[in-house]
Amino acid sequence: MSDAEIEALGRKILAAQPYSQSLGTKIVSMGMGRAELCIPIHDGLTQHLHMVHGGVIATLADMALAFAGGPIMGEGAVTQEFKINFLRPGKGDRLIARGMVVASGRTQAVVRADVFVVVAGEERLCATAQGTIAAVKTS
Amino acid sequence: MSDAEIEALGRKILAAQPYSQSLGTKIVSMGMGRAELCIPIHDGLTQHLHMVHGGVIATLADMALAFAGGPIMGEGAVTQEFKINFLRPGKGDRLIARGMVVASGRTQAVVRADVFVVVAGEERLCATAQGTIAAVKTS
Amino acid sequence: MSDAEIEALGRKILAAQPYSQSLGTKIVSMGMGRAELCIPIHDGLTQHLHMVHGGVIATLADMALAFAGGPIMGEGAVTQEFKINFLRPGKGDRLIARGMVVASGRTQAVVRADVFVVVAGEERLCATAQGTIAAVKTS
Amino acid sequence: MSDAEIEALGRKILAAQPYSQSLGTKIVSMGMGRAELCIPIHDGLTQHLHMVHGGVIATLADMALAFAGGPIMGEGAVTQEFKINFLRPGKGDRLIARGMVVASGRTQAVVRADVFVVVAGEERLCATAQGTIAAVKTS
Repeated sequence: MSDAEIEALGRKILAAQPYSQSLGTKIVSMGMGRAELCIPIHDGLTQHLHMVHGGVIATLADMALAFAGGPIMGEGAVTQEFKINFLRPGKGDRLIARGMVVASGRTQAVVRADVFVVVAGEERLCATAQGTIAAVKTS
Repeated sequence: MSDAEIEALGRKILAAQPYSQSLGTKIVSMGMGRAELCIPIHDGLTQHLHMVHGGVIATLADMALAFAGGPIMGEGAVTQEFKINFLRPGKGDRLIARGMVVASGRTQAVVRADVFVVVAGEERLCATAQGTIAAVKTS
Repeated sequence: MSDAEIEALGRKILAAQPYSQSLGTKIVSMGMGRAELCIPIHDGLTQHLHMVHGGVIATLADMALAFAGGPIMGEGAVTQEFKINFLRPGKGDRLIARGMVVASGRTQAVVRADVFVVVAGEERLCATAQGTIAAVKTS
Repeated sequence: MSDAEIEALGRKILAAQPYSQSLGTKIVSMGMGRAELCIPIHDGLTQHLHMVHGGVIATLADMALAFAGGPIMGEGAVTQEFKINFLRPGKGDRLIARGMVVASGRTQAVVRADVFVVVAGEERLCATAQGTIAAVKTS
């Protein structure tokens, strides 16, 4: 697949995910082994200290891992496991996550993703994740 | 704090989290070093394969970790890091997560959480997580 | 396989691992989905603060994961990934690790392992790990 | 501290770690927020399939994390937790690990480390790790 085909497939999958839609998730850019996604921050995504809920950050990291690693193995890929370290409170205008495949085989890809919070146009690293994306047979 | 005071504090914090509210998160039970939370499953929480989005499962796991580990260190606790393995597709009536502190010190607690999907009244293990909850000074 | 056959296979594999032998690793007990291993502590296993080196603790955790999860999938199993939290300095007479399978499929098992340090006959939780053991075709 | 002072401190600490010495661990290079270490591969470090034992790879990753993240917080730093994905069998002449700090605060650093196996002079990514290094008071 070309990068354009990968991004088109990614947009089709994202549009078919009700939960990702409700978060306002958008694909910024995708290509073989990489994905950049973003979520605009609003009060509905916060916790009791008025910061973005860690679950939103983890969800965006998970999606960046899966959208970076999935196309290498075909449409039916799922996150098998991941680990995330939270580095900074999620306060700002939007979240951006960039996933990048570290290594991949026939049935699995190991992927990293960094999540940034954008404050007044400046990106600040907010969380970093590492995980495994596994192919699933959907036929 | 007594278990009743811990649960009351947990309910107060949860009620003040707009994002947790939008997911329909409820506290089933809390006590010192343990928390059980649930989220009813509906179409709005799914991904493109009609299963609960992994981000919802990760978010509930994160909350079970934080609500189990937080009260040991006071109100201002946050998830510092966690790792989650997905074990089974999230298809069913609701998600239940149970967090339990494994070890704790003055500034941190290491916690485990299991997430179950409830299908026709039967719990099936859906994901398992392990992470660190850290005290934060809110004053 | 019976528990006795599993333990016999485990002892055969352990005996064929030069590195595990050099650490003094011993199998205490094995069965389907569980393994208990130990390593006697001596000065050669320490770091500069005279505690057991974290690498030894991680190695024993890794082995407990693999020996608990491996027999479910046949002889050729390897650790695909794991996460470990260190909870207490490794000071004492010996390390004991207990691995237990949380969930398993045809090609993978998700496993937890606790590592204890034994001090004057008393076990103290020293580290806790969670990981994935994957089947490999050795033929 | 200058990079030269950091490397000198690292060599002093490594020389005082009996276990790291028994593995043949050497510091290739260190600086603020980064460390490169290596271990020559020999039969004594293998498991039953004649590959480097995963515990050795995990130990070298752990050391690269700690030696990269430790100097930022002073001499008394320990690995609090880490996660590792194994990507390729450890077969070759030596292991090289490179740790790099991703983010750091007053009491903690989040660090990544890649472990390579060197085969006929060529580096191949063998494992990748992410973890937290915490300051400890040694006085």
